[in-house]
Parts: sequence; structure tokens; C-alpha cells
Amino acid sequence: MKLYIIGTGPGEASQLTEKALEALSRSELIVGYQVYIDLIKPLIGEKETFTTPMRKEVERCKYAVEAAAAGRTVAVVSSGDAGVYGMAGLVFEILEAVGYNHIQVEVIPGITAATSAAAVLGAPLTHDFAVISLSDLLTPWEDIEKRLRLAAQAGFAICIYNPSSKKRGDYLKKACEIIMKEASGDTPCGYVRNIGRQGQTGKILTLRELAKEQVDMFTTVIVGNRNTRVMGNKLVTARGYKDVE
Amino acid sequence: MKLYIIGTGPGEASQLTEKALEALSRSELIVGYQVYIDLIKPLIGEKETFTTPMRKEVERCKYAVEAAAAGRTVAVVSSGDAGVYGMAGLVFEILEAVGYNHIQVEVIPGITAATSAAAVLGAPLTHDFAVISLSDLLTPWEDIEKRLRLAAQAGFAICIYNPSSKKRGDYLKKACEIIMKEASGDTPCGYVRNIGRQGQTGKILTLRELAKEQVDMFTTVIVGNRNTRVMGNKLVTARGYKDVE
Ligand SMILES: C[S@@+](CC[C@H](N)C(=O)[O-])C[C@H]1O[C@@H](n2cnc3c(N)ncnc32)[C@H](O)[C@@H]1O
Ligand SMILES: C[S@@+](CC[C@H](N)C(=O)[O-])C[C@H]1O[C@@H](n2cnc3c(N)ncnc32)[C@H](O)[C@@H]1O
Repeated sequence: MKLYIIGTGPGEASQLTEKALEALSRSELIVGYQVYIDLIKPLIGEKETFTTPMRKEVERCKYAVEAAAAGRTVAVVSSGDAGVYGMAGLVFEILEAVGYNHIQVEVIPGITAATSAAAVLGAPLTHDFAVISLSDLLTPWEDIEKRLRLAAQAGFAICIYNPSSKKRGDYLKKACEIIMKEASGDTPCGYVRNIGRQGQTGKILTLRELAKEQVDMFTTVIVGNRNTRVMGNKLVTARGYKDVE
Repeated sequence: MKLYIIGTGPGEASQLTEKALEALSRSELIVGYQVYIDLIKPLIGEKETFTTPMRKEVERCKYAVEAAAAGRTVAVVSSGDAGVYGMAGLVFEILEAVGYNHIQVEVIPGITAATSAAAVLGAPLTHDFAVISLSDLLTPWEDIEKRLRLAAQAGFAICIYNPSSKKRGDYLKKACEIIMKEASGDTPCGYVRNIGRQGQTGKILTLRELAKEQVDMFTTVIVGNRNTRVMGNKLVTARGYKDVE
């Protein structure tokens, strides 16, 4: 009767919170995308799991909801934070559709890729920022373009999720070109691949260079704003020096 | 010679990551704002601390940097994520100013208020969103207005930090009025006060109602977008039902 929706952070086991670990240990059934379940395998031992391949998340959430309705303690896991391009929204949508109001649901936040990528690069998200996905599976590309344009006009640092996929090899290039209409090509940017996982790599480069870069779907990209500078080997959005908390 | 910059999450000890806990335990000196140090007191026991009141963060960061330069292992702590309106940026700015390139710096991400507030409310940040602070100590109010307006035009869900202070009692009202020029007054919104701390309270209400609400500085506000709905007692930005990861 209890359904946890758990964000498991970027990858390594040490980046889950204790609260997430406790909820996992209380759960009888762990539901998620195969790759994420594998990443947290050492934490869940021999517990029952239900996994489906990519793009079968509705099926997965329905299974979890049915199991919780049948009285079990179930955890739905997403990488990063389950509420950011993760499964939390879908679980609530399904709960509403099937009308199971008696299930107790708890969302347990996780470290989302925006902040774990920022930490690897330095401190590029110190001030106002926008988070945008380049995936056009659920959002028309025109809307994504509009958001990129307005975010750049507004002077946000921009964190880009889902920057690429097989079908969308040139989307990051297109996104950079839109941003470059509003911002200098010299704007410092960075990206991190496989955060908290084997082979983590980060790179700092200009917006102009980023437009030519080939990244994959395991990458989070951060485009700086007017106050972003490279300090040593770090990407930092300066907040200024006034004495404030 | 090692300087950790650690995000300690919203409040309760169970919302730190293991990585953050390990870094705290390796540190000889913990530097931070008094209130946050008090919140994590049980985790740091009898360790040496250096605290200053609000608005003395530059002094605090300099102290930490000097101690690390002198060979000590030091932790600078911020609530939430240290890279989001926290101390990470300032530490890098100070390191650059004093030119200590030999200090090893590691940023350890934490659960930021955007995602911990979202988890309490349901799943309002499932898709693209903007994070905006209403504090005009470092940012001219005109810039904040512009960001609010463009973020609403772009259709972002908007997460508002620093929604209020003694001097800025009517800033949230002003912000809501700006957003209401672009979005319906019926837009579902929510806020959470004291996330993960004693007396945590959340509320779901319309944008029109939010404009009349009095909140304090320990509150994080989320303004939904066109796809945000109230489902049961949860605030959810619907992503749609297509089968995607
Ligand atoms: C479907 S979204 C899931 C986001 C996740 N719920 C979060 O909060 O981080 C997948 C995208 O998140 C980003 N991402 C998630 N985990 C990552 C990691 N370990 N390293 C780099 N990027 C990651 C990438 O941009 C990837 O394309
Ligand atoms: C100076 S900012 C620090 C943000 C912090 N570094 C983070 O990542 O959450 C302070 C603002 O963060 C939000 N905040 C931080 N902790 C909170 C909590 N426990 N409950 C509610 N809001 C919180 C509030 O909007 C507050 O005015």
C-alpha cells in the first residue's frame, strides 16, 4: 500500500541520500529501467525487481501502481531526481487515471544531473538558470526552440538534458545556434558525460565550440551566461562580491 | 590542502548523500552559516567549526580558503546544493582573487530546494523549468522582472527561491502579477516552508491566490505551467502518456 518514487542520483551508490537508501530497504519490489537498476544492484541485493527496456515506462509505472494497490511496498526508481524528466509525474498521472487514492505515495528527491554536472564543472548554476530537454518525443521542436531563445534572452544559465540521441544528432548544434543569436559565441560552457559513473569526463569550451561538439545521451550540458567565466580549470558563474548569505 | 564545498540538502540529516557525509567526516574544520551548522550538528560532533552570521559569507569563505591553504582539510557547507545560490561560486571567486591554485577543491552536490519542494508537492518540475531568486541584493529588480516575464512566456514551470524578506514583503505579489500577464490566474502553484525541517508545511493554490499569500524566506515557491494540474492533493506537471524513458 506504499509507493516510493525514488531518485537515485547520478550513478555511484554514494550519491544516494540515506532517506533513499532506507526507502529502498523497506521496499519489497523495485521497479525501474534496467540500466538504473543495475547501477544500484549492490544496494538492493536479492530483492524482487521489475524492469523494462527504455520507452516502456508506462508499462513499468502501471505494474508498480498495481503492486502497491495489492498491498505491497514498492519503489519506482529513476536516476537523478525522479521529478525531473523522471517517473514521478507519470506515476501520479497513472494513479489519477486508475483512481487509486488509497495508495500512500512518497517522492524521495535525488541529486539531479543539473547539480551533479555543475559540481563537476565548478559552479556554473550559482544564480538563476533554466533547465531544458532537447528531446522532442513529447514536446514539439518549435516549443523547445522558443524556450532556448527566451532563456538566452533572459540571461539564464541553461542546463540541457537529453542533448542528443541517434535520431537527434544535430539538436545540440541547433540549440547552440539559437542561443548564439542572443549570446556571444565566446560564452563559456561545459558538459559532463557519465556523471558519477565509470568513465566520467567533463569538458569546458566556448558556446561556438560546443556547437561543433558531438555529445551523446549520457551527457548533461551547461551553457553559461554573461557572468560565467573560466577560473583555473573550473566553470563559474560569478555572483559578485557583496556580503550576502 | 583539501577544500570540500558541500551541499547538505534541505535540512534533515537523512537527506545528505553518503558522499557528503564522508567528506564531512574527513574534514577537520567545518565552515558555514550558523543555522546550517546547527542543523547538521549531530553529524559533525565535536569538530572545529567557524560560523558567521548571515551576510558575512565572504569573510567565511576567505577563512576557509586560508585554512585550506595552510594545509588543513576544510568543508564549506551550504544548505541544499552549494552551487545553487550557495557558497560554491564565491569560494571559486575568492580562490581566483587570491591565486591559490594549489588547493584541491571538490564540490559535493546536495538536494536543492527546487527538487525537495517539488517532491513534497508532488511532481511539478517534471519538464522544463526555470529557477529564479527574488533577492535583489545582487541583481537589479528589473532583471528579475525580465526573467519572470520571459520564463512565463516560454512556458516554463518556475521555481522561486528567496521569495520574501523583511524588506521585500511584497516581492512575491509583484512576481505573481508579472507572471499573470502571460499565464492564467488559475495556474496551479504550490509552496513549501521548512522543507525537511521541523514544522514543514506545504500548500497548493492558484497563481491568483499565491499573489495574496504571505510567505517567508524559509519558503520555496513553484508556479506551474499550462500542463500543471492538481491530482488528488498533489501538484503535477503532466508530461503526457507516450511511451518514453
Ligand atoms: C530522461 S533524463 C533523466 C534525468 C534524471 N531524472 C535527473 O534528474 O538527472 C536523461 C538525461 O539526464 C541527463 N543525465 C542523467 N544522468 C546523467 C549522468 N549520470 N551523467 C550525465 N548526464 C546524465 C542526461 O542529459 C540524460 O540525457
Ligand atoms: C540562499 S538560498 C539557498 C539555496 C540552497 N543552496 C539550495 O540549493 O536549496 C535560500 C532559499 O532557498 C530556499 N530554501 C532553502 N532551504 C529550504 C528549506 N529547507 N525549505 C524551504 N525553502 C528552502 C528558500 O527559497 C530560501 O529563501
